[in-house]
Amino acid sequence: MINIAVLGYGTVGSGVVEVIDTNSTEISSRLGEDIRVKYILDLRDFPGDPHEAQVVHDIEIIFADPDISVICETMGGMEPAYTFTKKALEKGISVCTSNKELVAAHGPGLIKLAESNGCSYLFEASVGGGIPIIRPLNKALTAEHIQSITGILNGTTNYILTHMDEDGVGFEDILKEAQRLGYAERNPEADVEGHDAARKIAILSSLMCGSNVRYEDIYMEGITGITPEDFKYAHALGMSIKPLALSRETDDGFFAMVAPFMIESSHPLYMVKDVYNAVFVSGNTLGDTMYYGRGAGKLPTASAVVSDVVDCARHPGKTVACVWNEQDVRLTGIDEYKCRFFVRVSADKKNDADAVFGEVKAVDAGISGEYAFITGVMSNADFDAACGKVGGVISRIRTF
Amino acid sequence: MINIAVLGYGTVGSGVVEVIDTNSTEISSRLGEDIRVKYILDLRDFPGDPHEAQVVHDIEIIFADPDISVICETMGGMEPAYTFTKKALEKGISVCTSNKELVAAHGPGLIKLAESNGCSYLFEASVGGGIPIIRPLNKALTAEHIQSITGILNGTTNYILTHMDEDGVGFEDILKEAQRLGYAERNPEADVEGHDAARKIAILSSLMCGSNVRYEDIYMEGITGITPEDFKYAHALGMSIKPLALSRETDDGFFAMVAPFMIESSHPLYMVKDVYNAVFVSGNTLGDTMYYGRGAGKLPTASAVVSDVVDCARHPGKTVACVWNEQDVRLTGIDEYKCRFFVRVSADKKNDADAVFGEVKAVDAGISGEYAFITGVMSNADFDAACGKVGGVISRIRTF
Repeated sequence: MINIAVLGYGTVGSGVVEVIDTNSTEISSRLGEDIRVKYILDLRDFPGDPHEAQVVHDIEIIFADPDISVICETMGGMEPAYTFTKKALEKGISVCTSNKELVAAHGPGLIKLAESNGCSYLFEASVGGGIPIIRPLNKALTAEHIQSITGILNGTTNYILTHMDEDGVGFEDILKEAQRLGYAERNPEADVEGHDAARKIAILSSLMCGSNVRYEDIYMEGITGITPEDFKYAHALGMSIKPLALSRETDDGFFAMVAPFMIESSHPLYMVKDVYNAVFVSGNTLGDTMYYGRGAGKLPTASAVVSDVVDCARHPGKTVACVWNEQDVRLTGIDEYKCRFFVRVSADKKNDADAVFGEVKAVDAGISGEYAFITGVMSNADFDAACGKVGGVISRIRTF
Repeated sequence: MINIAVLGYGTVGSGVVEVIDTNSTEISSRLGEDIRVKYILDLRDFPGDPHEAQVVHDIEIIFADPDISVICETMGGMEPAYTFTKKALEKGISVCTSNKELVAAHGPGLIKLAESNGCSYLFEASVGGGIPIIRPLNKALTAEHIQSITGILNGTTNYILTHMDEDGVGFEDILKEAQRLGYAERNPEADVEGHDAARKIAILSSLMCGSNVRYEDIYMEGITGITPEDFKYAHALGMSIKPLALSRETDDGFFAMVAPFMIESSHPLYMVKDVYNAVFVSGNTLGDTMYYGRGAGKLPTASAVVSDVVDCARHPGKTVACVWNEQDVRLTGIDEYKCRFFVRVSADKKNDADAVFGEVKAVDAGISGEYAFITGVMSNADFDAACGKVGGVISRIRTF
């Protein structure tokens, strides 16, 4: 019998309890023993809840019980989650978390703390909700030199861009709809400006290179500037616009960014729609692999947390392997990133644009008063310089 | 230092050695120690090969060396692979294999043998080549009640159907092209008749339900009857035809089959093209996830074998968890499987077909002399009975 405590009885925390209740037969068969939720820490009481008797308000009750070998941290936010996590790991209690803010900010320190105390700090649920991606990176792609990761890591922005694409509506309208459906927060900034995806690609990038990629260092552009006209051009090109987070080895280091990109319909990420997420991983011997699933949601995220609990329970007194050192990785700047750009300029700038950008591929989407084209492959620095010379740029989107 | 032996220096075996050579830095960093190929067993000599000195012709040399803790069985076929595998496991040496025939035929017995000798029998490379799918099922979806698995598990048939779809050519022509490119065997029966996919879905089904699904029990249809005309109708429907292998929980048990299916363009499996494979897994709390990558090929398959070696090396003296009991699962028959059918009958049977099948959706692909339609959801038994009444059936394809 594995006794666990769940910290925070909100969406994910109650999901963890529900998954353990619902799938106890499967979990026991795979683990060889039962998992029991002995405590649920929350400030609130839950009268009438089937797990009412497990609810406690004081973390010390949990720390004082030697039965507890695993804690699920589903509180979110930095504090008190950080303090509780450190204290648990110091006591040799493994922690399984869905808290991407905490993982992105303190992942390597907490992994090291777990290692020195013979327990584990696991975070499958922190990226891609229900998609098993942390475990494949740590346990399955162990023979690979991973060269790049490209993800659709934020369900809110993917939902918004999918419906702008398919329904022809504007950003503000579909954002309101997403908020009404609970797919977007009332304050949507963390999603639409790219902070959430930056945290997630920072975590994946760190696992890719084994050292620490700071999410604050990641170049980021939101999706708020994307318009229905941009999608008209995308359709004319047989493409769509997707919210990508990517990281790449470069000649002299490592690069990561979050931005909307135009993407061909033949790319596997093209078909990742609505609130689904996917992670596309390229390795030097494996080639391309992709992992697809629900990026968020109570039960998918909770299932990922419980899979971490099973992993801890299978390795009592051991640390589940995760290479993520504390040393920070210096990222290459956006200036050096090279791609083709989709550009719209006012119609009177056509000759200037052709002169400055050289050979471009013109795009006609039946929109008057402007000239749109795709550039050759160029660096962001060169592109910005060229735009400065031409002037009259209406919008520009990188292509993938 | 982990000392290993590679049995069979053919395509996959030499790939294993190449992956270990190429990615030694990454592997050592993740494992904390080096992997060394101490022996390569093959009947042939390899003069001039950089690993010439490791080649031995007698398995007993390997078994007599106490340094060897892991063996990669990349020989394929039943014998002597089966005998060598049993003997290794009896000696407590873990075996990592790409040999799907052996896994499908003797998987649960070999897993049990490994368990009783404190070692592991791992087979990530046996399904989906470079796609991590066995490890996600065994280690990541541990909190899930898995309800269905649907895969494109055979690269040859997916290549053939993709090019029939995109280039409008016939089966025989594209089969010859696939043989010329090395994507199909000279005797293509195992691929085009579904035996290869049946073995792979038997392995995945067994892991899904924890008991043994015999591949001989799996209902199977090949792709040899699919014609360019069928694809014309598929296009008219906005669909494609894909070689699917599927397994499902049913009300009274379990069902598995291999056959070509028509599939909507909105389904994630639609975009799995050429020699790529994918496995679509539905769980009760996780929802849908999908795993995509190269289904075969020297280095992808070898990378999967080496990831198994790393897994064994991380668990010395332990058995890596895998629930696959020897008890056989009784499969529901094809008669009870329900779906919509795409049907072509000769034009003079239109009235009979409408009378027998009731409400159908007619499909026009500009082909004269016939009448094509999609039925309502019905069982295979009812469908066959209806076809018998109408007569004049030109072709029929299940829809997914």
